[in-house]
Amino acid sequence: MEYEHFENEEHEWESNLKVTEGVDGPIQVNPKALERLKQNRQQLMPLEWYVDSILKGDRVALSKAITLVESALPKHQELAQKIIAACLPHSGKALRLGITGVPGAGKSTFIEALGMHLCKQGHKLAVLAIDPSSQRSKGSIMGDKTRMEQLSVEPNAYIRPSATAGTLGGVARKTRETIILCEAAGYDTIFVETVGVGQSETAVHSMVDFFLLILISGAGDELQGIKRGIMEMADGIAVNKADGDNVLRANRAAAECRNALHLFPLPESGQETKVTTCSAITGFNIDEVWKMVSDHVDAIRENGYLERKRAQQDVQMMLDTMDSALKNDFYQNPVIEDLLLLVESDVRSKRMSAYVGAQKLLDTYFSLLKKE
Amino acid sequence: MEYEHFENEEHEWESNLKVTEGVDGPIQVNPKALERLKQNRQQLMPLEWYVDSILKGDRVALSKAITLVESALPKHQELAQKIIAACLPHSGKALRLGITGVPGAGKSTFIEALGMHLCKQGHKLAVLAIDPSSQRSKGSIMGDKTRMEQLSVEPNAYIRPSATAGTLGGVARKTRETIILCEAAGYDTIFVETVGVGQSETAVHSMVDFFLLILISGAGDELQGIKRGIMEMADGIAVNKADGDNVLRANRAAAECRNALHLFPLPESGQETKVTTCSAITGFNIDEVWKMVSDHVDAIRENGYLERKRAQQDVQMMLDTMDSALKNDFYQNPVIEDLLLLVESDVRSKRMSAYVGAQKLLDTYFSLLKKE
Repeated sequence: MEYEHFENEEHEWESNLKVTEGVDGPIQVNPKALERLKQNRQQLMPLEWYVDSILKGDRVALSKAITLVESALPKHQELAQKIIAACLPHSGKALRLGITGVPGAGKSTFIEALGMHLCKQGHKLAVLAIDPSSQRSKGSIMGDKTRMEQLSVEPNAYIRPSATAGTLGGVARKTRETIILCEAAGYDTIFVETVGVGQSETAVHSMVDFFLLILISGAGDELQGIKRGIMEMADGIAVNKADGDNVLRANRAAAECRNALHLFPLPESGQETKVTTCSAITGFNIDEVWKMVSDHVDAIRENGYLERKRAQQDVQMMLDTMDSALKNDFYQNPVIEDLLLLVESDVRSKRMSAYVGAQKLLDTYFSLLKKE
Repeated sequence: MEYEHFENEEHEWESNLKVTEGVDGPIQVNPKALERLKQNRQQLMPLEWYVDSILKGDRVALSKAITLVESALPKHQELAQKIIAACLPHSGKALRLGITGVPGAGKSTFIEALGMHLCKQGHKLAVLAIDPSSQRSKGSIMGDKTRMEQLSVEPNAYIRPSATAGTLGGVARKTRETIILCEAAGYDTIFVETVGVGQSETAVHSMVDFFLLILISGAGDELQGIKRGIMEMADGIAVNKADGDNVLRANRAAAECRNALHLFPLPESGQETKVTTCSAITGFNIDEVWKMVSDHVDAIRENGYLERKRAQQDVQMMLDTMDSALKNDFYQNPVIEDLLLLVESDVRSKRMSAYVGAQKLLDTYFSLLKKE
């Protein structure tokens, strides 16, 4: 019965596929319609099933709901927004930790070590990644998941490989929504990992309570320049790989960091940025890193900064939600979708300028809205 | 007469300033209205003046027009779009060179050296910067301008410090529009410099004919990871600071780059990514770097890739233009502007969730559009 319903839906979509006259070939099938046809094959459950199962801590339901959050299909988005609205009152209680690091700093190993440390203490941990994929290379967080060997089989840990692509604003919104779902599912600690360097730090910073920077010793002069902007954002720094004959160098790097931080003004949080060495491989000082995080969060909860920060993050979430909604309403309008194909082809072949093309689409869109 | 008109306009704006009841204090003045009031003090000239003067190569008119492109004020944007439309047929003939580099690579000195080399050959050069300013630190391109001592007084060079801030998409659109204006003003070579690391490379890549990466020797292992993504995008690499006792190290770094590049597939352009050493200080091989650029551009003009690339860039420009227009129409709607202040205050004080707030604003906006 359910299956039949799903089959019917598919046919409905198939008949909606628009075939338009192309320029470079005889016929073009609207690629977005094809994509929707593919996505539509996923079977949906009733809203209550998602919400009840998530609140019970069901990982399968959580994963399915996150997939809906990440989907571009309007009916998936609609359901996702309802699930989020229902989960919202049950969210907000977790400690949200953002983790970034230079390539080679051993971020995955560190997350595995700190994550296992927390799970052993009885914490429930969700590990998310923010990954605005570049044009040419796709993110490789799946590879990272398999590198977190212990954490990926730990019952109290939930690792979500990032499958989303798109603009940073869109990806940030989806990650914030995923945090809400994970918190409603009972995870009391959320790690948000940045993938790539320099692109997503600001976004992660805008959704966590503590932003941790992982460094290693031996960074060249040039790297210092790269780190500066990220160091400004960090609430704490862990110099990893303080093991074997690397301990002295790690200590020296930590001291250099402390010196550099003295040049910055005291952060808005009122808390000095702390620096510690650690080794994800031997487990050295992993507890100290966690103490640094939890002490800081306790302090900013006390001095009122946490509340102000989360309020600001809520406003940012509202702005991101509106930006996404405005774009979706435009690009998912079926008339615009088809017209875009034609105009794009005209712009590509220089028959129309980019500005005239944009204006034509915008005029059509706004006049459609008036008629609605 | 002109002056009186301008005075009147100002008063008109002043009377439009909305005063709303705030939560945290008794009275709030809409900050966007204040900002507009300030921006509105700039006196506007007729469209023909801008276009005629730009086509004659007038630098003052060019600068004023770019200021309009960068302005957020609706009437400035309207005039800017008309100027661009009029300049568009006179654009597209320049060679557009994107320049990026790790911090400390001597980008400014390099631009000064290559720029002076080109001006002496009779080229007319415009140097632009793309700078999506981070939340905490503003870009410092003004500092760079003063470091380009010779170029900043060279009559054939036009250096435009980037004053824009905002989302990457918005900044990219404004830079593309500035390129059009510079080309219409007769500049046959455009440099677009990235400010910061990792954020704006993709945007610059999407608007230039050749993307040049400037490196120096002595980069640590970690830096290699950072470079990889950017190296993939580069059409050519210049290892700078090949002077004094650094020549051998620069040669070795160049050799390492060539080895690393062999691991990548041949770029879409069909041209291998070339690597050369140079010294911006001594002038060594600066001509070779330019030969690398112009040979590449000649080759992709020949094999048809340049045309395809620019067509793709035009489509991207159309999409960015539409995204900006959609956001502007929303955020510059006076009803939305005032409602946003109230809703934001409710979200900030937890009286309303971010989603409910976003939905309220979106519903208001779309019902306003229907009534128009």
